[in-house]
Amino acid sequence: MTLKEQLDNLFKPRSVALIGASPTIGKWGFNILTLLLSEKGREIYAVNKHEAEVLGLKAYPSILEVPAPVDLAIITVPFQDIPTTMEECIRKGVKSSVVISGGLAESGEEGAKVQNQLVKVARRGGIRFVGPNCMGFFDTSVDFNTVIFLPPLRKGPVALISQSGNSGQSIITVGIERGLGFSKYVSSGNEADLHYEDYLEYMAQDDETKVILGYIEGLREGQRFFELAKEITKQKPIVVVKAGRTQAGASAARSHTAALAGSDLISDAAFKQAGVIRVEEIGELIDVAQVLLGQPLPRGRRVGVLSIGGGMAVMAADSVIKQGMELASLSPATVEKLNSVLSRRWSHGNPIDMGGDRFNYNCLWPLIEDDNIDAILVLGSPAATRRFLEWYSRNAPWLTNVDEMKKLAEAGELKELEKMKEMRGKYAKPVIFCAMGIDIVRQGEVYRWLEQNYLVPYPTPERGARALSRLVEYSEYLSMSR
Amino acid sequence: MTLKEQLDNLFKPRSVALIGASPTIGKWGFNILTLLLSEKGREIYAVNKHEAEVLGLKAYPSILEVPAPVDLAIITVPFQDIPTTMEECIRKGVKSSVVISGGLAESGEEGAKVQNQLVKVARRGGIRFVGPNCMGFFDTSVDFNTVIFLPPLRKGPVALISQSGNSGQSIITVGIERGLGFSKYVSSGNEADLHYEDYLEYMAQDDETKVILGYIEGLREGQRFFELAKEITKQKPIVVVKAGRTQAGASAARSHTAALAGSDLISDAAFKQAGVIRVEEIGELIDVAQVLLGQPLPRGRRVGVLSIGGGMAVMAADSVIKQGMELASLSPATVEKLNSVLSRRWSHGNPIDMGGDRFNYNCLWPLIEDDNIDAILVLGSPAATRRFLEWYSRNAPWLTNVDEMKKLAEAGELKELEKMKEMRGKYAKPVIFCAMGIDIVRQGEVYRWLEQNYLVPYPTPERGARALSRLVEYSEYLSMSR
Repeated sequence: MTLKEQLDNLFKPRSVALIGASPTIGKWGFNILTLLLSEKGREIYAVNKHEAEVLGLKAYPSILEVPAPVDLAIITVPFQDIPTTMEECIRKGVKSSVVISGGLAESGEEGAKVQNQLVKVARRGGIRFVGPNCMGFFDTSVDFNTVIFLPPLRKGPVALISQSGNSGQSIITVGIERGLGFSKYVSSGNEADLHYEDYLEYMAQDDETKVILGYIEGLREGQRFFELAKEITKQKPIVVVKAGRTQAGASAARSHTAALAGSDLISDAAFKQAGVIRVEEIGELIDVAQVLLGQPLPRGRRVGVLSIGGGMAVMAADSVIKQGMELASLSPATVEKLNSVLSRRWSHGNPIDMGGDRFNYNCLWPLIEDDNIDAILVLGSPAATRRFLEWYSRNAPWLTNVDEMKKLAEAGELKELEKMKEMRGKYAKPVIFCAMGIDIVRQGEVYRWLEQNYLVPYPTPERGARALSRLVEYSEYLSMSR
Repeated sequence: MTLKEQLDNLFKPRSVALIGASPTIGKWGFNILTLLLSEKGREIYAVNKHEAEVLGLKAYPSILEVPAPVDLAIITVPFQDIPTTMEECIRKGVKSSVVISGGLAESGEEGAKVQNQLVKVARRGGIRFVGPNCMGFFDTSVDFNTVIFLPPLRKGPVALISQSGNSGQSIITVGIERGLGFSKYVSSGNEADLHYEDYLEYMAQDDETKVILGYIEGLREGQRFFELAKEITKQKPIVVVKAGRTQAGASAARSHTAALAGSDLISDAAFKQAGVIRVEEIGELIDVAQVLLGQPLPRGRRVGVLSIGGGMAVMAADSVIKQGMELASLSPATVEKLNSVLSRRWSHGNPIDMGGDRFNYNCLWPLIEDDNIDAILVLGSPAATRRFLEWYSRNAPWLTNVDEMKKLAEAGELKELEKMKEMRGKYAKPVIFCAMGIDIVRQGEVYRWLEQNYLVPYPTPERGARALSRLVEYSEYLSMSR
């Protein structure tokens, strides 16, 4: 079997056995079974040595007793019992497994011994497995999920490979909150058998996946990772957090997933050479995924800043420079066009302070057309109109037509946004919205449009500029490596 | 009149005239009047040259026609008309004013001339004013607010002075979202008359105010600021964003509020000497306000990290070091106590990875008692239990006792939190919660308790560590300057 076939078998099983199914709320074997039972489309078998029935499902004392073929075994038994359990899986003909249980290589010598034994058993039997010491995986294309305690999943183009289960959950939760959808996810745990590199190779071949995110503590096949990445990033961007930047962090990583963090400087250079976008925090993974999915690749680093307020304009100017980009000089034609749109109060230069408190799209078109500008940072959210109108509902209850105004305003705004999308594509210029607290109203048609177009505003100019800067670097990498 | 009397008159007026009241939705004169009419407790007068009535209120052609004394005039007339309007206010005996209108010194020569004329008029007449080119102010102690488009206000100990109206709105909105309440706010605009330093002196004397936040682009009386700050920070912390760090930002600031940003290095050193906490982003103002209000001052910079997951532990360790603090060495007694609470899977060192996925308070008590530890960063939120239980409601609808479990869990958690608060005070050790997406459930009794105690979890370990580090520095400053 090819790696793709092996991992297809894992991610898209037709039948699943949960070994360690439990009737006790809170236990892994309870929680995962609960989740599996809430899904549809495949056979679920419970295995429990002591119970005849778990959560209303007949329980078998061993996987060997299950009366039908099993594609995937999910193992939640105590660590000492894992090798025997795996042997039984092999005898049953199971081809893939995920070992949720921890207490192995990450916990010291005793656990490391059991893990070695487990690997030997699996290699001999030809079974591939995820983990141990992990939180499972999902594949939304077949509606299969073994990861508990997640919010309702959204389908979409983002894949995630995480060496930390909790970090993976955070990344997915934050992503869903910002409107991103996911294709596949795996919490890779100790990577005793399947390595980070195997998942990476697989996600690269996945048609539903357009961007691959990662949380890495240490790579087991560093060279293979970078060789793979170099090819993949030509087609699909890879964005990673590599934790353990400091000595203290690296040593914590060792006791977490038994990973060797390696020299941070070396990985920085290697990531860069392979076109991998490295970010500092897990929230930034989502920030960067947004621009990668939603924006055209810019041709340079000259940024136009368009702001509803002067303070934000100042902070955005600072952020553009701090992030290694430049403030564009407006062409005379653009200044003239802005003069005709704005009152004399505007800043007459870049950053452009519109000097009022409503966002005017007619300031955006000249910037998109200006040859001196490669990308545009907008301070102020298209979803703001709704906020103003909600303020009226609260403070001027005697205004009876606010709902109607809301509808009209949203319809008008959607037209402008569609125009923006078209022009942005034509001129290949990213247009990025930032709004600080005040402007994000997470409802209404405009907000839904922003979600669908990966344009949910960044909560600070700093984060918008940082994400844009990563996009600029990726664009430069691609044009240099061509 | 002392400055305090002058500003009391401004912040706590008994009667207010809006000069430039407008019947047109969206105009400043419409929005502010709408807001004033929604408030109670003072006389409101509308002044409009052309209309006999605005929003159901009799309108006077000039403030001179108003048949009763006026404490405060809010001016929204076009910029050319401001000096004349101010003269009329003086003749009427008005003692304070806020000039909302822009188009003055920030807009070029013509506006600068008008502003100079305005200042002359006001000085001669003995009237003090806020602005021009500002968004107003509020004082929650008397329920008076002139700032439009804010969310419903929360009373509390935070004062804010902002040289940018939009930034001010963002700071307040983000603060309210994180459960902070505000005492006073002023958007200081061009500061033609009242300066940043005047507001600072006033807020320092305000009993409701415990922390003073600021957004600064340039100080008009730098030396006075630092002399004042040096005294104030002994009692009340001052936290500021100083925008215009880069050349580009500084020049944008000049065209925004006509402020000279000055050398950034000089202000960094001066802030430090005066005990002013300088932060980089406006969101960080709120992050730092939280620790200042909610935490005891730590005695040192040795941090204990307690985490529900290994990945977060690694990132937190990195963050503690990056923020200039140290990872504490656990005392042997603490290791022993943790051994008795946790399974063998725990990390056996700092950062402490509990190795499960539920937060165990019994791990917290030994850390608070450990003399080797000055502050504790907790990765995982007390509000998480609710998330787990909501997941059960969604995925196991056949579980009928989830609501009851929720109640029990919250009651138990509140008891632990009260104990934590007591021990934390006794040992003077900050305990800071961080949770990344997954754990923040913004409802329920536990969340309300966290809000009331300034303990709403930080969304990343980086932000929690950064806020803690500012608190450590402030604590060190105070003990050195004693």
